[in-house]
Amino acid sequence: MSNVLTYGTFDLFHIGHLRLLERAKALAGENGKLIVAVSTDEFNWNAKQKKCAISYEERATIVAALRCVDQVIPEECWEQKTTDVEKYNVDIFVMGNDWEGKIDFLKSQCEVVYLPRAEGISSTQIKTDLRG
Amino acid sequence: MSNVLTYGTFDLFHIGHLRLLERAKALAGENGKLIVAVSTDEFNWNAKQKKCAISYEERATIVAALRCVDQVIPEECWEQKTTDVEKYNVDIFVMGNDWEGKIDFLKSQCEVVYLPRAEGISSTQIKTDLRG
Repeated sequence: MSNVLTYGTFDLFHIGHLRLLERAKALAGENGKLIVAVSTDEFNWNAKQKKCAISYEERATIVAALRCVDQVIPEECWEQKTTDVEKYNVDIFVMGNDWEGKIDFLKSQCEVVYLPRAEGISSTQIKTDLRG
Repeated sequence: MSNVLTYGTFDLFHIGHLRLLERAKALAGENGKLIVAVSTDEFNWNAKQKKCAISYEERATIVAALRCVDQVIPEECWEQKTTDVEKYNVDIFVMGNDWEGKIDFLKSQCEVVYLPRAEGISSTQIKTDLRG
């Protein structure tokens, strides 16, 4: 039984998002808790010059409606990971393996797990397919 | 406590889908059950010449992962509504009000409720926005 934390944007919610969240929840174990930090529109724009198709409020509401998700918090800056791990008593920090190695600085605070992302599924791919 | 049944495609899952499903679940009452019929790719193509961005399997998996949904079944033809209502002991049949009046033939079998759809949110609108 662990507290698991993951971060993401979850724009145009798709099966790759769901599979990652369900595997993260499985790592939490029975009665464990999955906390999901959803990046705000401001953070996406200011830090990544990324404009989402779907607003933060709607993205966060969909993620919170999933059976496998216990709590949703906003991601507002790069620096909050360290404080979130402490604040939410996080045992395992999970990211997709496109982040491999980039969150290793948290290893002094908790376990860090990079999960394989689903091949060929991404919000960017959906947008590209729809535009093409 | 009722069995509620609704039908839909749920392509590019969005907040309008979620709000309709959560209102349908609320009609079921405490310990009530929400059954969702998700239209198959074949049905969408053969009956409506509609090609989904997301496959049936992925659309159905996302709908089934929602806390408010108890069971997902496939929608394979126009005629199955009558038999589904009987098979699943349905008390309330729910559709968005774009279907207003069109499911009244079920009123001899169960209650039929048309719920107002969210303004300005639809899979078609998302596709149009992304293409534009």
